[in-house]
Amino acid sequence: MVKAGAALRQLKASNADEAAIEAARVHLEEVKVSLRKASGLPEPSDKKESQFNLKTPKGTKDYNEKEMIIRERVISTITGIFKKYGGVSIDTPVFELKEILTGKYGEDSKLIYDLEDQGGEKCSLRYDLTVPFARYVAMNKINNIKRFHVAKVYRRDQPAMTKGRMREFYQCDFDIAGQYDTMLPDAEIVCVTNEVLTTLDVGDFIIKVNHRKILDGIFDLCGVPEDKIRTISSAIDKLDKLPWESVYQEMTVEKGLDPAVADKIGKIVLSKGGAELVDELLRNDELANHQKTREGLLEMKKFFDYAVAYGITKTISFDLSLARGLDYYTGIIYEAVISQEDIKPAVNGSKKEKKKASNKDDEDSQTRIGSIAAGGRYDELVGMFNSSGKSKSSGRVPCVGISFGIERIFAILSAKHNHSELKPNHTQVYVIAVGDGLVLERIRIASMLRESGVRTEFALKEVPRMQTQYDACDKTFIPYSVIVGKEELSNGTVRIKYMAAKNKPESDSGDSNGTIVKIEELVDEIKTRLLNI
Amino acid sequence: MVKAGAALRQLKASNADEAAIEAARVHLEEVKVSLRKASGLPEPSDKKESQFNLKTPKGTKDYNEKEMIIRERVISTITGIFKKYGGVSIDTPVFELKEILTGKYGEDSKLIYDLEDQGGEKCSLRYDLTVPFARYVAMNKINNIKRFHVAKVYRRDQPAMTKGRMREFYQCDFDIAGQYDTMLPDAEIVCVTNEVLTTLDVGDFIIKVNHRKILDGIFDLCGVPEDKIRTISSAIDKLDKLPWESVYQEMTVEKGLDPAVADKIGKIVLSKGGAELVDELLRNDELANHQKTREGLLEMKKFFDYAVAYGITKTISFDLSLARGLDYYTGIIYEAVISQEDIKPAVNGSKKEKKKASNKDDEDSQTRIGSIAAGGRYDELVGMFNSSGKSKSSGRVPCVGISFGIERIFAILSAKHNHSELKPNHTQVYVIAVGDGLVLERIRIASMLRESGVRTEFALKEVPRMQTQYDACDKTFIPYSVIVGKEELSNGTVRIKYMAAKNKPESDSGDSNGTIVKIEELVDEIKTRLLNI
Repeated sequence: MVKAGAALRQLKASNADEAAIEAARVHLEEVKVSLRKASGLPEPSDKKESQFNLKTPKGTKDYNEKEMIIRERVISTITGIFKKYGGVSIDTPVFELKEILTGKYGEDSKLIYDLEDQGGEKCSLRYDLTVPFARYVAMNKINNIKRFHVAKVYRRDQPAMTKGRMREFYQCDFDIAGQYDTMLPDAEIVCVTNEVLTTLDVGDFIIKVNHRKILDGIFDLCGVPEDKIRTISSAIDKLDKLPWESVYQEMTVEKGLDPAVADKIGKIVLSKGGAELVDELLRNDELANHQKTREGLLEMKKFFDYAVAYGITKTISFDLSLARGLDYYTGIIYEAVISQEDIKPAVNGSKKEKKKASNKDDEDSQTRIGSIAAGGRYDELVGMFNSSGKSKSSGRVPCVGISFGIERIFAILSAKHNHSELKPNHTQVYVIAVGDGLVLERIRIASMLRESGVRTEFALKEVPRMQTQYDACDKTFIPYSVIVGKEELSNGTVRIKYMAAKNKPESDSGDSNGTIVKIEELVDEIKTRLLNI
Repeated sequence: MVKAGAALRQLKASNADEAAIEAARVHLEEVKVSLRKASGLPEPSDKKESQFNLKTPKGTKDYNEKEMIIRERVISTITGIFKKYGGVSIDTPVFELKEILTGKYGEDSKLIYDLEDQGGEKCSLRYDLTVPFARYVAMNKINNIKRFHVAKVYRRDQPAMTKGRMREFYQCDFDIAGQYDTMLPDAEIVCVTNEVLTTLDVGDFIIKVNHRKILDGIFDLCGVPEDKIRTISSAIDKLDKLPWESVYQEMTVEKGLDPAVADKIGKIVLSKGGAELVDELLRNDELANHQKTREGLLEMKKFFDYAVAYGITKTISFDLSLARGLDYYTGIIYEAVISQEDIKPAVNGSKKEKKKASNKDDEDSQTRIGSIAAGGRYDELVGMFNSSGKSKSSGRVPCVGISFGIERIFAILSAKHNHSELKPNHTQVYVIAVGDGLVLERIRIASMLRESGVRTEFALKEVPRMQTQYDACDKTFIPYSVIVGKEELSNGTVRIKYMAAKNKPESDSGDSNGTIVKIEELVDEIKTRLLNI
């Protein structure tokens, strides 16, 4: 058992794939059971106590009402910005025909969730919103659309919950499809990214940009064999979390690249900068004379012209080591990252930052936590769905887009909020009975308020305790109570009381008893008061 | 082949299960292929043309931007009402551990979608939002919560798209969990239902209510054997779409119930009415002396007292034939239905109504289309997750709730809207260049407007055609354009033009040329104008 446990831990530490870890886990369980049987020990008590495994599936989580308040604010901020740039909303099913997703994600295809074959079509849960979008554009023969889509996607990845890496997670996508002029949609997408991250106040961020044509050109120039380009590209992409030496090792030892070629690559891809770096590279004859690299660099020059007009150059970094894993990118690629000082535990950090740091749940907590949005241009994806029966050009719809990882943004913002101070509901008035329960009267008063749009609650008990009713107001920060009593009712009146002062009934005196109003004036009076908070 | 085709049609007509139909379909395909090969005919062309099956999975659909506008309005109306009654929002994963869903849905369990076993936990897509809610309440040891949840659920049912019966569809649920006084939460749920359906303006509706205790009592009194109660109950539930004779047939011939017992049931369950029916039944000694029936009737009496205070009795019908299929209901049950005259094709119906009628896609189009919300009390479901390790009472959290079927409501409202008049985006201003492209200037003007919150677009071309820019405004009803020209710019001005008049540039004269404003006054001027539309 010790051996089986060690094997499991070793697999976990070595980033082994899910299936291998699961097999090891099952084996460990079997070893435990046989040992228990051999030793005559009883079943562990937790197995007996619960007939249900009372949890959500691995890598998924529930959102409680306070988390939902934050999540809804984030989503509404993001979609508000998408709308400001002319985006329209569409929705696609959570699963697609399996063949739609096949061949779009390279090595990551193994992370796709399949539905069980229960008779009928073979389906898979969507892995992102981009491929379903391309399918939608092709299927509906759309020539151009600026669309956004906020929805959950699914990946059978190793979860790292505190970093916001989940198996079920939200993506907020904004994409522009259509034949437009070079870099105009691309620059607008980066402008949207800049505005979203600035507005959400996630801390300092950088939007790294690079261009697939430049990268491919560089690999070609340095002498990377055609069949190694994707795998070397994915090694280079790790330069944001690994030192050059490790990446060099991976390229030469693991992936068999000629060390001389790797050295040559290193000299170029470690460059970072702004528009001036584009000019510098264009002055390099070798790069400028290579058709692909030249094309990419000239496009990047145009991109920076537009970025200047948008006023967003401050957050943009032209980073030649950015490669992005997905197969379908063909032009500019980008990735927004939170600056390191905002995510690494600061030496003099605040209490919150320290707490965040100590929550980290796995060995690679230093890596990638910073990436909160990514995207790029994918000009051939729609065409892949339109590929036959038509001429290639007619089915081709160039696209460029960005995808925000809400869970990571949520994790950052959630740590900033004091959850105990968040109002979980939207209730404005609580109708309280003094003395007898007066349940029918409370229903009538509440209905009157609700009819006029006031968000109102009352205790769902026939004769509720006074304290319970006051507690309900305090617990969820309900600003006003309407107090219903037999005597007031017989005069056609009720009392309005401002609750935020948190005065308990026993401490009431004078004005803190509330204000007596006629029932027919209650709605107007409450509405006026609500305007003033 | 004729035989195979007939067999397939027969299976479809007889409501055979999915797997049988699929098997027959596959068989039919095989017969077709072998016939084609034998006759030397070529492959059908559609097989050759597309390497992808360019569609969404059966029973699912995409929502385009105009459908999304309607759907978002419906959802926002519903959640607005949920919030008005004190509801808080939660979210749960789209799939649950399979064992969580097992044993909760009776016969319908066969409709659950399972995820493929790819190593790890066995999971299923959620079938409704109620069981995941109960799991959430149990898992988080919640004593009381008034929660709403708007999310998609999944059922491997035979789709009937025009009726809004889908395999992926939205549910909007509002539930009250907690120990409250009899019928107070229940009446509030029905009040919410009434307000949602009234506000959405879906046409005349009735909320049918019944009580599981009354039904069970009646079955017991009439002599239905214990083991036949659920199946007889589901036969009775069909009385809204089948005449008594057919249901009688099903009970006696198919399900082997004694005809005398069936007669006796018929005498009672065909009754419908209001509070007076409760009193009438309480005066029936046989019913009043049976413990279960009596309990149910007394609870219904209380329910009607509250319904009177809520002012919602007009739309409520106490209907003894309402039974509801799901296993987990224990108390009051309800179902909201659109009145028949609003869904059957009217003889003198409008064009739209006729169109709707002709769209009907399958043989049972007369049935069930009216049901747009349903729910009830389920006091034992949370306890099923808390069942062991604790005393039964401590894990028990009584619940009552309602679920709105958005797709059906959407189908009704969508038919009412003229989609060509719906504005699909939210854009308020379009920046137009005259003469040269002035792309950097358009970017700067658009950025200025967007920074101040104005939703702005411009053509993503360096030198866009005039007509293209005007068309863009017309196509999506953008109210204002800001026209940028070289001459005006040199004077530090632009022109604002109201576009809703749909004047084309060639017809422009006098005021219709727009108003010249200084660039530094543009934002204020546009904002003032936008306030006035």
